[in-house]
Amino acid sequence: MSLYLDATRCMPTSRPPIWIMRQAGRYLPEYRAFREKYGFLDMIRTPEIATEITLQPIRRFGFDAAILFSDILTVADALGSDLNFVEGKGPVISNPVRTMADADQLSSSSLRERLDYVPQAIRLLKTQLGDTPLIGFAGAPFTVASYMVEGGSSKDLRIMKELIYSQPETMEQLMDQLVKATADYLNMQIEAGVDAIQIFDTWAGLLSYPEFQSLVIRPIRAILNRLRNPAGIPITLFAKGTSVFWKELSQLPVQVIGLDWQVDIGAMGQLMPADIALQGNMDPMMLYASHEILEAKVTHILKSMADRPGYIFNLGHGILPDVNPDQVQRVVQLVQQFKNERIHA
Amino acid sequence: MSLYLDATRCMPTSRPPIWIMRQAGRYLPEYRAFREKYGFLDMIRTPEIATEITLQPIRRFGFDAAILFSDILTVADALGSDLNFVEGKGPVISNPVRTMADADQLSSSSLRERLDYVPQAIRLLKTQLGDTPLIGFAGAPFTVASYMVEGGSSKDLRIMKELIYSQPETMEQLMDQLVKATADYLNMQIEAGVDAIQIFDTWAGLLSYPEFQSLVIRPIRAILNRLRNPAGIPITLFAKGTSVFWKELSQLPVQVIGLDWQVDIGAMGQLMPADIALQGNMDPMMLYASHEILEAKVTHILKSMADRPGYIFNLGHGILPDVNPDQVQRVVQLVQQFKNERIHA
Repeated sequence: MSLYLDATRCMPTSRPPIWIMRQAGRYLPEYRAFREKYGFLDMIRTPEIATEITLQPIRRFGFDAAILFSDILTVADALGSDLNFVEGKGPVISNPVRTMADADQLSSSSLRERLDYVPQAIRLLKTQLGDTPLIGFAGAPFTVASYMVEGGSSKDLRIMKELIYSQPETMEQLMDQLVKATADYLNMQIEAGVDAIQIFDTWAGLLSYPEFQSLVIRPIRAILNRLRNPAGIPITLFAKGTSVFWKELSQLPVQVIGLDWQVDIGAMGQLMPADIALQGNMDPMMLYASHEILEAKVTHILKSMADRPGYIFNLGHGILPDVNPDQVQRVVQLVQQFKNERIHA
Repeated sequence: MSLYLDATRCMPTSRPPIWIMRQAGRYLPEYRAFREKYGFLDMIRTPEIATEITLQPIRRFGFDAAILFSDILTVADALGSDLNFVEGKGPVISNPVRTMADADQLSSSSLRERLDYVPQAIRLLKTQLGDTPLIGFAGAPFTVASYMVEGGSSKDLRIMKELIYSQPETMEQLMDQLVKATADYLNMQIEAGVDAIQIFDTWAGLLSYPEFQSLVIRPIRAILNRLRNPAGIPITLFAKGTSVFWKELSQLPVQVIGLDWQVDIGAMGQLMPADIALQGNMDPMMLYASHEILEAKVTHILKSMADRPGYIFNLGHGILPDVNPDQVQRVVQLVQQFKNERIHA
């Protein structure tokens, strides 16, 4: 049995499961020890290292789910984006997509071969994780396309927006390729044995409503339609900054919706259909709080979701690199102890 | 009669009024000509220059409202923040507020004297604007405090969040001072003759719901309660990224709510109380669009609000510095022509 999998199915659980976005990452000294020796892409592409990094936070904190150590840009890389990770700058793509010709040059012909390190890592992890479920993931087409077009991170997606508004055909061509490649990639992960999938659409909140429909909702729906998911493993969608469109999100065929830290998750729990589980949503910066405030905030979230089956504790975005792991330990303890409070209540 | 003022009161208008946030700014060559000769703060603090800059977009485009050329950080400066504008970096405050002692050092004792250039500019503008109404403005306490704490711009408010979560008393002290100073500042502008007020809470969307209530809704309500507004000039609130909390916003005693580009303004027009006017909400990056797409987008917004009294066309955030003024001209024409379409429809 798994608290996490039960919660994704909106089954009652003795306490909420907890995992944390980017839990295998730089805030952990044991992660930094590897990162000092290896390049980021090398770590992702070496199944033994990806496995070790994935396991680190499970060993330290006993999280209720593991998430494959990887990156949302693996698909861009496999399609032909020349991807590098530059210290202090993040992802850099030296051949950005700016024209139809650029989009036409992308190719999915060797996608499976180029991404084979991912199923390898998944199979290895499954032999070592025991009862802890493994979450596979992919970036949603819009967010991955944003990096491919901008050539890296961007706070406002200036170049991407110009492409959307002045070359819609190029945008459509790029999105079509990403929908197919992302569905293939997720199918590879399902075949290799992941227990759940999460789709990340980090930049979806920067779009206007018509583009939210055409570049977020429509392509994600197309991917979900292409999944071969015979065991019905649960799918989570985390589309940051889009809670104002909660109704559209809840009409997608997903089992879990991840919420960012902005909304009152208790209120969302009332609004959302009862057969959709919710995941979230503590402000990642709450991990800089004093002990007293951190405890009050965690408890507030737990209490506001205590009566709703289908709740998974998480942050409202990825954990930040300079967080003290002791703060994470406190949060994990609070969530684990909440079990006893409820049983004795 | 003024289209803008009528629309703020939800009176029917022959066409929607239009103005654009940051309309007096760097995208205009006539603005850049001044900026080459003067420092940004010098321009703001010299009533004749502030007047000239305010008038530039009115002369060029015939916008239906003028907005005082100034900055949301004037109040921080008057309270004792050592403010400078650094080319390519934006505002820099060299004595950021990080402790209670820092907050205690701020002083509003000479606020009126230090901000006297603002009413001077307003009085001068009122002699030159003719029938065009003049909008005065202030930054909301949370957004102004964010700059005062961070010491400048920040994409994630890392330092501000840590202060909120670990030194709530310091935060409260800073917010109290800003509430009083901002109310005084807006009262100065009302006394000097502005026809309307807009309050900008640019970073409000980065907060969680409890802090949205305590640091956005509560202080803005406190300011509104302190306004001496015998003529009942309309107040607009623009709190970027907070449409998910539209209900809380609409319960504030404001006449107009400015919407950012994310939401479907037509849908918001249905949800919001009929006595609240809406302003917005085209994506500022739509001004990079092809002519065809720009026209379709402007028309879509105009049509979606055509049946709702109380609508003011604007962007969903400030205009960007590299926009071609011809694109603005096209938008203005489309909005102005919409009048005729409706009359002949």
